[in-house]
Amino acid sequence: MDVTLAIDAMGGDNAPRVVIAGLNRVLHRFPGTRFLLFGDERRIRPLLRRFRRLRSAMEIRHTDKVIGGGERVATALRAGRQSSMRKAIDAVAAGEADGVVSAGNTGALMAMAKIVLKTLPGIDRPAIAGLGPSMRGRFVMLDLGANVDCTADNLVQFAVMGEVFARSVLGLAEPKVGILNVGEEHLKGNEAVKRAAATLQQSELAIRFHGFVEGNDILEGTVDVIVTDGFTGNIALKSMEGAARLYTRVLREALTSSLLARVGALLAWPALSAVRRRVDPRLYNGAMFLGLNGVCVKSHGGTDAKGFANAVGVAVNLVADQVNDGIKEDFARLKGVPVNGLRVVGEE
Amino acid sequence: MDVTLAIDAMGGDNAPRVVIAGLNRVLHRFPGTRFLLFGDERRIRPLLRRFRRLRSAMEIRHTDKVIGGGERVATALRAGRQSSMRKAIDAVAAGEADGVVSAGNTGALMAMAKIVLKTLPGIDRPAIAGLGPSMRGRFVMLDLGANVDCTADNLVQFAVMGEVFARSVLGLAEPKVGILNVGEEHLKGNEAVKRAAATLQQSELAIRFHGFVEGNDILEGTVDVIVTDGFTGNIALKSMEGAARLYTRVLREALTSSLLARVGALLAWPALSAVRRRVDPRLYNGAMFLGLNGVCVKSHGGTDAKGFANAVGVAVNLVADQVNDGIKEDFARLKGVPVNGLRVVGEE
Repeated sequence: MDVTLAIDAMGGDNAPRVVIAGLNRVLHRFPGTRFLLFGDERRIRPLLRRFRRLRSAMEIRHTDKVIGGGERVATALRAGRQSSMRKAIDAVAAGEADGVVSAGNTGALMAMAKIVLKTLPGIDRPAIAGLGPSMRGRFVMLDLGANVDCTADNLVQFAVMGEVFARSVLGLAEPKVGILNVGEEHLKGNEAVKRAAATLQQSELAIRFHGFVEGNDILEGTVDVIVTDGFTGNIALKSMEGAARLYTRVLREALTSSLLARVGALLAWPALSAVRRRVDPRLYNGAMFLGLNGVCVKSHGGTDAKGFANAVGVAVNLVADQVNDGIKEDFARLKGVPVNGLRVVGEE
Repeated sequence: MDVTLAIDAMGGDNAPRVVIAGLNRVLHRFPGTRFLLFGDERRIRPLLRRFRRLRSAMEIRHTDKVIGGGERVATALRAGRQSSMRKAIDAVAAGEADGVVSAGNTGALMAMAKIVLKTLPGIDRPAIAGLGPSMRGRFVMLDLGANVDCTADNLVQFAVMGEVFARSVLGLAEPKVGILNVGEEHLKGNEAVKRAAATLQQSELAIRFHGFVEGNDILEGTVDVIVTDGFTGNIALKSMEGAARLYTRVLREALTSSLLARVGALLAWPALSAVRRRVDPRLYNGAMFLGLNGVCVKSHGGTDAKGFANAVGVAVNLVADQVNDGIKEDFARLKGVPVNGLRVVGEE
């Protein structure tokens, strides 16, 4: 399946340089991919000189408007219609591209994507989903920040989307789903998580629903899909990133603290590099906006070419695996089933 | 200052063995400390044979009732009046002890302590506070799970308590206070954190208030006091613990994966041990229940003697530094000051 992606060439700290170098890497992994690049042609064109293959796999759509990283969502929506980000999203809505990737302003990207692409039938609010490494493989967690306050219905919808995602993209036959909570007992937790858990237990998804999980279960790999509200999910994810950074720094300091330690580190270098590769955040770059009528992936703004390529790879997989069709089918199947509290809206 | 602590000898996974061995360690660090041990005398007595010094620094108050780790809070409150946990708390209320330490059921300990000791004037709800290592020293975070839903007022009170705590126990002249949120911009976040931030900015504490911090700032050491609701705080803390565990395991696997790596690890052993010591969770064992009319410390249920001794050490410090008096004074000082939204109750 040949995939065409709309790329916001101007989003991120080092755009468009990192974007161009990243796209070139994508062609090694997914040779058939085509790109529509939205951005400043005068800045993009000179960067393409080194990448002959990329040149023949892409097309530039010029615009000199860019949404700033710190720009308010309201301003971006009002004044950003000609921006590289908005035009890239528009290309998906127009059927010119199968998905969009941007390393720009997260809030603006989500707001614009919601307005232009609309949510899938059955989904009240889209969620930001991310992948990470666990002790047993990989996990997907959602929401990571799109929805600060979530109802039980929102959480149930996140569970359905996460489950489809884990089957399609992680390739798991029977992914396990858990709701993040403060304790495993059913008495604990806020009202939303308790009601969401009760709904899932009575739904068709019951067989995949593990129940509540705690913070340490995320990386333990107790479940494959972690469901939570955007406030908690965002803070949990960034807390874990902070822990990895502290650990790495303390370790580096220790391994350069004495001659003996330096020699030891040198001998253990291949092994230590393997650790670094396993926890390399670039491998997990690419947050997916699930629940939209179109594939939309957000890259970290500060990533490099390797990281950006990974985010684009995530978009390619989402398109190729037809994840959105899976979500639609699952909600259609749940429709009409007497599921307590699970509000399922018909096709629009 | 000589401190007398009431100890729940039967709380935790390996009680009373770990408790007794832990108390013996405390006497090395705080020689003047005295203990009132509540628990099963027939099980405690034989364990004391090895610890002559401890025997002369303590007294056993026999009871054979114990609150189970999985017991419901309501049951514990109703049927637990003769339990070792409850009797230890009662000893603080009666003025026989300066504080209480238990490694038992967290929910039961908090509920009983609230009923028996009552909250300090100005505090609506006590919070669980914990210490941890950051890149710049140590941080204190609260709440860690006592209050799943928090109002802006609760968060403001946590900020006041945390600030006093950081001055007394961490010995900081001007601790910085931050509220955990999903973004640093003022537009982001839920209503409670936004209102709490606005209140703090207009209060006497404004000078110490850094503003919002994100998950990665916790271990970065951006601020000394992290204020958050119990749901988010508990999940953030456990997520970071999970990250440390994953990292340690991946590292251990890597360093035993080849002969070269093993030799390297051996040479770097002293340095690696230093890392382990720095992130040793036992060093940070001892969650403080702040906002109560009495010192109450919860040890991790699965800790060893070293960890339990640390939790008891935290209680000794809280008593010696008169943290509760500091909190009372701060609230008294804030009283009458026209602070928007900050409800300060007078002395009862």
